[in-house]
Amino acid sequence: MTAAIRIIGIDPGLRNTGWGIVETLGSSLRFVAAGTVHSDGTLDLASRLAQLHDGLAEVVHAQQPFEAAVEKTFVNKDATATLKLGQARGIAMLVPARAGLKVAEYSPNAVKKAVIGVGHGDKKQIHMMVKVLLPKATFDTADAADALAIAICHAHHRESVAYRFAV
Amino acid sequence: MTAAIRIIGIDPGLRNTGWGIVETLGSSLRFVAAGTVHSDGTLDLASRLAQLHDGLAEVVHAQQPFEAAVEKTFVNKDATATLKLGQARGIAMLVPARAGLKVAEYSPNAVKKAVIGVGHGDKKQIHMMVKVLLPKATFDTADAADALAIAICHAHHRESVAYRFAV
Repeated sequence: MTAAIRIIGIDPGLRNTGWGIVETLGSSLRFVAAGTVHSDGTLDLASRLAQLHDGLAEVVHAQQPFEAAVEKTFVNKDATATLKLGQARGIAMLVPARAGLKVAEYSPNAVKKAVIGVGHGDKKQIHMMVKVLLPKATFDTADAADALAIAICHAHHRESVAYRFAV
Repeated sequence: MTAAIRIIGIDPGLRNTGWGIVETLGSSLRFVAAGTVHSDGTLDLASRLAQLHDGLAEVVHAQQPFEAAVEKTFVNKDATATLKLGQARGIAMLVPARAGLKVAEYSPNAVKKAVIGVGHGDKKQIHMMVKVLLPKATFDTADAADALAIAICHAHHRESVAYRFAV
């Protein structure tokens, strides 16, 4: 019997970065923990990025996930928002990478498909299905729920060869 | 007599992140060092961000700058490029912030104005003026020269109150 694989999903954002941890063993999934790392909007950008870093690093240290997954951010038309998100996303990918974890990326559609069963659907549907798939899940914010959905998506894809390039 | 202030300027980019270090004392400027941190384009994004992080952290540790300045990235119309740059920029701001440095941000126009004297001009003019202002400067790449220009810009602005919000 193989051991359960602990996965951290991360939904990056400058103000709120959600994280969610699940364990997968074969086709079974188990909720471990979820939460949100906040940055203080009154501080300068560099200090806010350091807050996100330190908060996420604490989670990775405490929860000891084995693999990580981050949402492949939707690139919208607002370049300023895209740049801001990119900065937070850089931190979200850096922290698990420096802890020695492989970091997979999934598009929002891949996450929806893994959780809802189709590549479209709203946030409400995602959060409802997270509760169905992980009955014991509790999350403080929508970002934490999204992070759990990303972790679930990775649990579904990680078995496939070269999953990082599959979606 | 006050001590010279050592400043690191950083020009972020996912493939090449330039860095340049100057010392300022009153109106005098002195070149200290400059270089470029590269990431390996064949690796996955998270590993590349970790390479940028580790390379920059090594520079900050070795050179012990006291303050940092990063270019406020020009937001162009290519959202994918903006996101990529944002991720590298997140790392460029995180590293000095975590080392306890204040991190100032300057627009490309402010950098041009500080180095050339006007808010417009091409890269060639900037590099030429970096050589005029720092006769002993050597740089391996255009990114390192740009980083020195950013450091020069900060040396000019840091005396003003709340310089971080001045440009």
